[in-house]
Amino acid sequence: MVSLGPGFPEYIIPQARVAVEQAQVVVGYRTYIDLLAPLLRGQEVVVSGMKTEVKRCQDAVDLALAGRRVALVSSGDAGIYGMAGLALEVCRARALRVGPPETLEAVDLYLEVIPGVPALAAGAARLGAPLMHDFAAISLSDLLTPWEVIEKRLQAAAQGDFVIVLYNPKSKKRDWQLGAVRDLLLRVKDPGTPVGIVTRAMRQGQSVIITTLQDLVEHPVDMQTIVIIGNSQTYAYGPYLVTPRGYLDKYAVAGAPGAEPNTET
Amino acid sequence: MVSLGPGFPEYIIPQARVAVEQAQVVVGYRTYIDLLAPLLRGQEVVVSGMKTEVKRCQDAVDLALAGRRVALVSSGDAGIYGMAGLALEVCRARALRVGPPETLEAVDLYLEVIPGVPALAAGAARLGAPLMHDFAAISLSDLLTPWEVIEKRLQAAAQGDFVIVLYNPKSKKRDWQLGAVRDLLLRVKDPGTPVGIVTRAMRQGQSVIITTLQDLVEHPVDMQTIVIIGNSQTYAYGPYLVTPRGYLDKYAVAGAPGAEPNTET
Repeated sequence: MVSLGPGFPEYIIPQARVAVEQAQVVVGYRTYIDLLAPLLRGQEVVVSGMKTEVKRCQDAVDLALAGRRVALVSSGDAGIYGMAGLALEVCRARALRVGPPETLEAVDLYLEVIPGVPALAAGAARLGAPLMHDFAAISLSDLLTPWEVIEKRLQAAAQGDFVIVLYNPKSKKRDWQLGAVRDLLLRVKDPGTPVGIVTRAMRQGQSVIITTLQDLVEHPVDMQTIVIIGNSQTYAYGPYLVTPRGYLDKYAVAGAPGAEPNTET
Repeated sequence: MVSLGPGFPEYIIPQARVAVEQAQVVVGYRTYIDLLAPLLRGQEVVVSGMKTEVKRCQDAVDLALAGRRVALVSSGDAGIYGMAGLALEVCRARALRVGPPETLEAVDLYLEVIPGVPALAAGAARLGAPLMHDFAAISLSDLLTPWEVIEKRLQAAAQGDFVIVLYNPKSKKRDWQLGAVRDLLLRVKDPGTPVGIVTRAMRQGQSVIITTLQDLVEHPVDMQTIVIIGNSQTYAYGPYLVTPRGYLDKYAVAGAPGAEPNTET
């Protein structure tokens, strides 16, 4: 289960690159397979379209059980709303014994998740530093999760004054959720709360917008968008959002380079 | 502001590597500078010890203002409890105008955050796939954040049934927080809730433990540990933790490879 990061090839870790290069079969969504062309040198390739996630994982497991070395690729981080969990679910539904490559126990399948730069880190980087303090990641896709659960999580995240990262804010079929999020959060949060909207971070056509909770729905978003809503301390600074952790309040005076804080990270 | 990922060199993205190689000055915590030795070919190096985060950022800003090309390095992702936010705070305290390298406006300093694999993604990868659904990241360090705020966030995260990722679970001076977290969460969550404890993920001496909320404090943790506490759906499967997203419930029958789900990721 190999993570490609947000914008191959500059954002894939060496271990993931090697895993793709050394695979006998590469399994993945069409768009990512196309991007991987430079790494494909004779590996068998199994491409699939959108909406075939279960089939894709089943194919990967079948191939691995047949003795092939398989790379199941995922954009961003395979373990954060990616393919890793579904692949493990498929293995468990078949009662397979699984373990890491270095396991000493008898298993049916060796598995490894190779991590990557998640979409939330890519989006945050383009916004400066909105995720410097506690945050909650919430997917707005209600195809697999009832909207009431999503609402409950949004309320809890607002109550806890978390920075909120929204995955899947909108799709062709889902266009009302982001407005509902705004209305729900406005009951608790300041309308001027800074919000960052990053689409296609580190890809062709990247867009970075800084706005406010009040104006959240005034900007284009799609399935490749990450929305980051600040906590009560987050501020806009030039083209950036910053969520302070409190170092400067506690220790430092601006321009006093000798200040010696006593901190952990 | 350059992210090194969890375990340099296999886990740093090419763009970050290039940023270090092309820097004129590399600024960072001693341990990470030591690790970077293979990339250092004549760059000036400014090392600092623990507890000097503010000074480190001020040094980096001073050097950049003096016209040097500076790489301020951070382990994991620089934007998640890393150095990026503090560096921006230091710039703001000095009223500097800042912008990305491609900005067209007049600025005092060009800045860029180069993302990396965050500690939470590294820890999750070693545990299988615990972060496949909504999660909250919370630091237990109460040096900069009042414990009441941390408690409020833990309560909110439990109420929202988030998977909970704990950063900084313990240090030499802070040894009671993890027990307090267990007691607090046990009021709401099942004692058998699966918990993963990963220390030094992808580094020498890595340790991966799967336990339960009830037994959370029975295992060694330190400042290099990430603790991941499941939501109500998370299950242990062999050596892994999986938080299902619901694909198999909704669409698939085990072993029915023809199932065509209609899903988004």
